[in-house]
Amino acid sequence: MINGLLQKIQNPADLRRLKSEQLPELATELRNFIIDVVSVKEGHLGASLGVVELTIALHYVFETPDDLLIWDVGHQAYGHKILTGRRSIFNTNRQLDGISGFPKREESIYDAFGTGHASTSISAILGMAIASGLKGEHEKQHIAVIGDASIASGMAFEGLNHLGVSAANVLIILNDNAIGIDPSVGALKNYLTQVKDGKNPKQNNIIEALNIRYSGPIDGHDLPKLLKELRRLKKIKGPKFLHIITTKGKGLKQAEEDQVRYHAPGKFDKSTGQLLIKSDELQPPKYQDVFGETLLELALQNEKIIGITPAMPTGSSLKIMMDVLPDRAFDVGIAEQHAVTLSAGMATQGMVVFCNIYSTFLQRAYDQIIHDVALQNLPVIFCLDRAGLVGEDGATHHGVFDLAYLRCIPNLCVFAPLDEIELRQMLYTVSLGISGPIAIRYPRGRGVHKDWKKSFQKIDFGKAKCLQSGSEIAVLSTGHIGNSVKKALAYLPEKDRKKVSHYHFGFVKPLDEETLIEIALKHKTVLTVEDGCLAGGFGSAIMEFYVSQVLQPTIERLGIPDVFIPHGSIEELQDLAGISPKKIAEKIKVSLTPHLIV
Amino acid sequence: MINGLLQKIQNPADLRRLKSEQLPELATELRNFIIDVVSVKEGHLGASLGVVELTIALHYVFETPDDLLIWDVGHQAYGHKILTGRRSIFNTNRQLDGISGFPKREESIYDAFGTGHASTSISAILGMAIASGLKGEHEKQHIAVIGDASIASGMAFEGLNHLGVSAANVLIILNDNAIGIDPSVGALKNYLTQVKDGKNPKQNNIIEALNIRYSGPIDGHDLPKLLKELRRLKKIKGPKFLHIITTKGKGLKQAEEDQVRYHAPGKFDKSTGQLLIKSDELQPPKYQDVFGETLLELALQNEKIIGITPAMPTGSSLKIMMDVLPDRAFDVGIAEQHAVTLSAGMATQGMVVFCNIYSTFLQRAYDQIIHDVALQNLPVIFCLDRAGLVGEDGATHHGVFDLAYLRCIPNLCVFAPLDEIELRQMLYTVSLGISGPIAIRYPRGRGVHKDWKKSFQKIDFGKAKCLQSGSEIAVLSTGHIGNSVKKALAYLPEKDRKKVSHYHFGFVKPLDEETLIEIALKHKTVLTVEDGCLAGGFGSAIMEFYVSQVLQPTIERLGIPDVFIPHGSIEELQDLAGISPKKIAEKIKVSLTPHLIV
Repeated sequence: MINGLLQKIQNPADLRRLKSEQLPELATELRNFIIDVVSVKEGHLGASLGVVELTIALHYVFETPDDLLIWDVGHQAYGHKILTGRRSIFNTNRQLDGISGFPKREESIYDAFGTGHASTSISAILGMAIASGLKGEHEKQHIAVIGDASIASGMAFEGLNHLGVSAANVLIILNDNAIGIDPSVGALKNYLTQVKDGKNPKQNNIIEALNIRYSGPIDGHDLPKLLKELRRLKKIKGPKFLHIITTKGKGLKQAEEDQVRYHAPGKFDKSTGQLLIKSDELQPPKYQDVFGETLLELALQNEKIIGITPAMPTGSSLKIMMDVLPDRAFDVGIAEQHAVTLSAGMATQGMVVFCNIYSTFLQRAYDQIIHDVALQNLPVIFCLDRAGLVGEDGATHHGVFDLAYLRCIPNLCVFAPLDEIELRQMLYTVSLGISGPIAIRYPRGRGVHKDWKKSFQKIDFGKAKCLQSGSEIAVLSTGHIGNSVKKALAYLPEKDRKKVSHYHFGFVKPLDEETLIEIALKHKTVLTVEDGCLAGGFGSAIMEFYVSQVLQPTIERLGIPDVFIPHGSIEELQDLAGISPKKIAEKIKVSLTPHLIV
Repeated sequence: MINGLLQKIQNPADLRRLKSEQLPELATELRNFIIDVVSVKEGHLGASLGVVELTIALHYVFETPDDLLIWDVGHQAYGHKILTGRRSIFNTNRQLDGISGFPKREESIYDAFGTGHASTSISAILGMAIASGLKGEHEKQHIAVIGDASIASGMAFEGLNHLGVSAANVLIILNDNAIGIDPSVGALKNYLTQVKDGKNPKQNNIIEALNIRYSGPIDGHDLPKLLKELRRLKKIKGPKFLHIITTKGKGLKQAEEDQVRYHAPGKFDKSTGQLLIKSDELQPPKYQDVFGETLLELALQNEKIIGITPAMPTGSSLKIMMDVLPDRAFDVGIAEQHAVTLSAGMATQGMVVFCNIYSTFLQRAYDQIIHDVALQNLPVIFCLDRAGLVGEDGATHHGVFDLAYLRCIPNLCVFAPLDEIELRQMLYTVSLGISGPIAIRYPRGRGVHKDWKKSFQKIDFGKAKCLQSGSEIAVLSTGHIGNSVKKALAYLPEKDRKKVSHYHFGFVKPLDEETLIEIALKHKTVLTVEDGCLAGGFGSAIMEFYVSQVLQPTIERLGIPDVFIPHGSIEELQDLAGISPKKIAEKIKVSLTPHLIV
């Protein structure tokens, strides 16, 4: 492979110098290259393996980067990155200062639009195509590749609904592999499957009904067919839609067979495909599993309990409940808006609904939280997975805005457990009945206790906890980052440590005002620590309280500064943001040092 | 009419005692009653007139409130309110302490779900129906009425996509009148029109493709047909979809002919239908018109300028540009998510995009602002119409969260003009080119200057303005509410007024830190005033700045407290929230009074 075709391709112009007969060979090389690197560097595997032929065909037929190409979500863009000048740095994928795991405009002129969240590509490419039309660039091609899970999201429909009344020069390619991260769901997916099986008319189908020229379905791994069809479509003006059928994980047996696990498999043996699984035994559980297992436990005892996830059954571990109680646990697909208002509807009928959405994706349902849930004070329980910095997925996926955007909503409680035991107890507590909605946020990854399955105990609503008592400075943290504060305190010399109190504010809203007043009486300085944005977050809530008080301590704040945080390990990123244990300890030390009088 | 049928109907049980032959007479009475009241009390007219027969038929055939009925958006629910126990208080519609203009759960057991924003009804009714199924209530009926504008929104599609794989007992009624507030747009609308015209197959149509049993289209004003079809559908289990054709404004000639104006016509002569138009001549212009006229003026000079609205061309006055430059001004329908990402796509190609969205509806596109615009630092200009308290539309429509939810987004500037001249100059300034995205928020209604068409002048980016200089307390306001501060200052006795400075912070982000330091040097107290929520808003931003400074003034804040504000006139609601001129003056007086030493 060292002297193979791939080696000679610095950019798509090089690719276009190959003969079309050479492309299948290149596909093999590209597939192997992806497997080689991802097997040791980790990342998203299955999606990129599934579009190797499509990626080659697109860059071969179209004049990228002049023709504009968007990869929806972007999990499948590794081949695209490798063919567009990033082969030699592909081994830095998803690392701090390395290339992003998603298309990113500032990284390459071939990345026409940054992606990460699903279903944006149709709107973005239509915007580009309309702009090209206005500029008189009528030969320019605009292509969006979108999967069958993403196209079922409302936003994609809005794009198609506009595209169908536009004359813009757009090609939508539906990469139909019947799976997103988990298997696709919904009526549209069933319909598409019937089209594949020849059971629905190719003419006058749902796409044609939206006035978009439909072609397909064709085999997305058949390079000659792909080239022929893309060349044909290239000559046709206006909105076009090509339906291709692919296999996620194509070319690696295990990845084809276990598509969910091989979506992002971690390290594996590239020759056998075997996963290199780390033993879980000696480690604390993931918050996700604590959520999933506890919810099932509660649901088995309370038949009013419902679980809802928009397309993340595996990631959120709601799958644990879905497997046992399929009638009461729902994967609604990539449809966060629907998930939230569906929950609201169920709550009106007395159901105890746990709606699990990643913090970053809840941004998609912001209006529904306000308008359908909080305004009606419906007791929906939002479980916000992957809150805080999420690591290698980077800027598109960090869940750092939630405290700010949720805290301003009337009627909504906001809670962040210190550890997995508190998460478990809070799930229990809210399952007993609550008077209004609540958001419970917790991070991606592991907690801190191996022995977490404690018997259920009710949490005192609205109360903060003193974890350590000191004399001068009070550190107020919310959620899992409190464990970093504990580590920070352990770094301090004994004499300094004694001066520091540590309070865990599980409730960001309502605030425990009584405890806050006590804190002000005992300490000169309050330092807030959070893994959310500083603008409007937990620290601001504390500040808002104290400025209305007679006794006002000096307030200092640690949290995510007002920039988008890139990708890297969670530890690296927390350090970058100044909220690693080391940085927290440094801040405490500075705060303990008597200030100069100015 | 005093002794008519309507008079005897206190609730739907009374209605169901009538003979079906009497219903057309009742329809006439109900229509007249709506016209009588709305002609003097104002409100939404056309939508309710269009569903008079449907409203009667639904309550006649189904066992409301046991059967659950949701009106999407809710503009059309007046007849429903009148038939469900609210006839005698219907004249309090949209007034403070009166009934809401929208369905509202706390107002009546017949209002199964509160609405206001579009396209929520399918998700909500499906949630209810699934809950009923789990509770074993298999005879219970669940009905959502949704218009052809609302069903084209992504959220509605997400609901249909789930409904089609559900066995839930749901009836969706598509009230197809080809208009929302403005005429409906998009490919789905064209498709539906073709169905009406008999050009598309009734079988295997887009609804059937989603596995939902389709029936219709039928005449929605033909009571016998409606009753027959609803009775038939009542007996069929599972998801059903009835397509009815109605005329918005039905029964009032002018309302049928000018459906846009008679959506919410203000006062009119009930016998002639003639509008009672107030003269505009002596009044300052609406902010909306300043936006619309200025944008057209700029767009005529700069061919890169684009205007986008999601379904509010008339309300936002983007229509002014659409009429003259239809190729560069787009109504994309009720599709806020698409509108924002479409704008982002256009911005990547060098277009200067003004995306006009009501503040409350921008909540629908929160993720797109973060993920598609701000993260890529694309220079999209968001014009947030109807920011602050909007008055009679009430809690669902107030634009009070925007400062909090936007301020936490990196790269995004947030600006609120003091008056319509500053709005005009800001539109000009940003049209010259900006380095990243900006949100410009302004209220519903009129500005303060009759002579607003000043020649264009560039605004100093990031600078606050001192409007009045005093010695003790500095009032910092942002946006139009600054005019209320001016009025408040006029209420103060001369000796007090001299002690008060007034600063206008057009830029909520970035803050003018230099001026803030000057303010702290000159004043003991800072009072912030905003027409947005106190939690995380403008005042919090000011606080966040000052706590990091050596010199910290006492900070007090006025703004919307942490509750949902109801409906009423803007003046009444501002008083309720403590931000009317009078309340601001009172607060200043208290702040000027020396505090007791505690």
